Amino acid sequence: MKKMINGVKSLLEESLNGFAKAHKDIITFNHQPHFIKRKQAKQAGKVALVSGGGSGHEPLHTGLVGEGMLDAACPGQIFTSPTPDQMVAAAESVENGGGVLFIVKNYAGDVMNFEIAGEMLDCQHETILVSDDVSLPKDHSTGRRGVAGTLIVEKIVGAAAEQGASLAECKALGERVNNATASMGVALTSCTVPALGKPTFDLAEDEMEMGVGIHGEQGRATMKQASASEIVAQIADAINDDLKPQTGQKVLLHINGLGATPAMELYLLYELAEQYWQEKGVEVVRSLVGNYTTSLDMAGASITVTLLDDEMISLWDAPVHTANLRWGS
Amino acid sequence: MKKMINGVKSLLEESLNGFAKAHKDIITFNHQPHFIKRKQAKQAGKVALVSGGGSGHEPLHTGLVGEGMLDAACPGQIFTSPTPDQMVAAAESVENGGGVLFIVKNYAGDVMNFEIAGEMLDCQHETILVSDDVSLPKDHSTGRRGVAGTLIVEKIVGAAAEQGASLAECKALGERVNNATASMGVALTSCTVPALGKPTFDLAEDEMEMGVGIHGEQGRATMKQASASEIVAQIADAINDDLKPQTGQKVLLHINGLGATPAMELYLLYELAEQYWQEKGVEVVRSLVGNYTTSLDMAGASITVTLLDDEMISLWDAPVHTANLRWGS
Repeated sequence: MKKMINGVKSLLEESLNGFAKAHKDIITFNHQPHFIKRKQAKQAGKVALVSGGGSGHEPLHTGLVGEGMLDAACPGQIFTSPTPDQMVAAAESVENGGGVLFIVKNYAGDVMNFEIAGEMLDCQHETILVSDDVSLPKDHSTGRRGVAGTLIVEKIVGAAAEQGASLAECKALGERVNNATASMGVALTSCTVPALGKPTFDLAEDEMEMGVGIHGEQGRATMKQASASEIVAQIADAINDDLKPQTGQKVLLHINGLGATPAMELYLLYELAEQYWQEKGVEVVRSLVGNYTTSLDMAGASITVTLLDDEMISLWDAPVHTANLRWGS
Repeated sequence: MKKMINGVKSLLEESLNGFAKAHKDIITFNHQPHFIKRKQAKQAGKVALVSGGGSGHEPLHTGLVGEGMLDAACPGQIFTSPTPDQMVAAAESVENGGGVLFIVKNYAGDVMNFEIAGEMLDCQHETILVSDDVSLPKDHSTGRRGVAGTLIVEKIVGAAAEQGASLAECKALGERVNNATASMGVALTSCTVPALGKPTFDLAEDEMEMGVGIHGEQGRATMKQASASEIVAQIADAINDDLKPQTGQKVLLHINGLGATPAMELYLLYELAEQYWQEKGVEVVRSLVGNYTTSLDMAGASITVTLLDDEMISLWDAPVHTANLRWGS
């Protein structure tokens, strides 16, 4: 296993210690139980945004805590849901009179634990389930998975909360963004979870996994490796069939690297995806390219599109100051 | 070869097209010859900073063009120096009455081509050679290689130029930063150059390359894979022996991912490196963790330390607005 670690058991704690030191101007790290918390003062009555999930997807969610985005993030062990006590402690720590909004990727463990946390919590709270992965059909038994669109929900709702939106308004906005967002990914290699010590799944040298999940879940099909244009066409068709944007629609285009894919390839995907939607009369007005919702060392990428209205554009552009997304401040 | 590309020949152009579209608010892309140029207006008389080098190290240098940093960057083919005509065209395009400062990583091809460009150039110009890689001895025949410390030179000198420093002042400052900066890297895997189609070098499953260059050049030794603590101790000793920081010295600590290394591992290295220098009484006052000077899909990382004075801290903190480094604006 090619990893720079000291041991499987110590990895998360040591890594979070480093994260907390590197970004001590923005966040603080609560050790028992684990959560990362925004350091900057916030207005009384502001809705507190709390997210979390298994580690191994960094910068999601810890790198997105700060002004204009999350108030706290709960990191679980790698690819393992955080526990309800983490969520409750984080929520109580950042609740500021405006209630708590949980932003949860739609995975069974996360959903269950955030539900339990909600039941344990004394303050007003709501939950947004993110389910942007169109590799699964809408009527799939457990619903669609939450993947790279989660960042977009967190950014837009985070800006609204910062500007004083109520808990009900934040929840409604988050659901609107989630419904306007679709993603699909492709893997060229598996990731390797340190505790397992070997790749999660096998792909031959000439194969790729289309529609892969961010933990290496199987997707739509294991296929022969295709050109970048063919990959983008398949993913973009799936997204486009789901969102059905009208001519003139403004969108955000997010190319997300899964961990081991060079920036050159991500920008090539951006170029091809931008062309795809331009030919459909859809206008890409905002972009985000880079490693944001990763799957450890997986080679591959996902494409996410959000149909934007003027309010969402304004909230996307609003100041944000986190470890891994920062502008306007 | 596990790459999302259309073809080896079209990759660079397609990728730069995507980069230019994704960041059209910050930069423009000149096609013939290739260079990326800052879009924002700049003060008359401002020194123009021009860098460049082989592609495959993104975001270095194209992602660092913009307010407070580079005025232009010339991307060569992958791991291949840009040509003098690119450098001359870029320099002439951004020269604004203050002269041109070339920031050049110390590789034979880059050095030669920037020299030729300088001879072809009509305006006042100077060159800073970055040579921060301490894996090679100071008296090595071609000098030390320029690696991840290049970003630090570009950021600090970029801020000075933005604030009105003269060409001579920028050159002197850049050399001061270069002399105060030391880096060393380790690879767990080779990168794969698309045109070659296979890994540049071989490492067994239990081996790592200590002191690796950013094109996969051999380093100090091919060694048995070690723990993160052992890796950091070796690299930090080499850096510390070179810089010899005094007790109380303030430093910038930069952990740079080479392409395929998860953020969790980079932050673990940060934690261990921060501890190393803390035990020596050295104070880490600024940090940068992420993929900045990459080597395509290489797994591994480098550690860079810069000894800071108050002027450098102020210039590091000054506003920067590029595709991949942004704060204060």
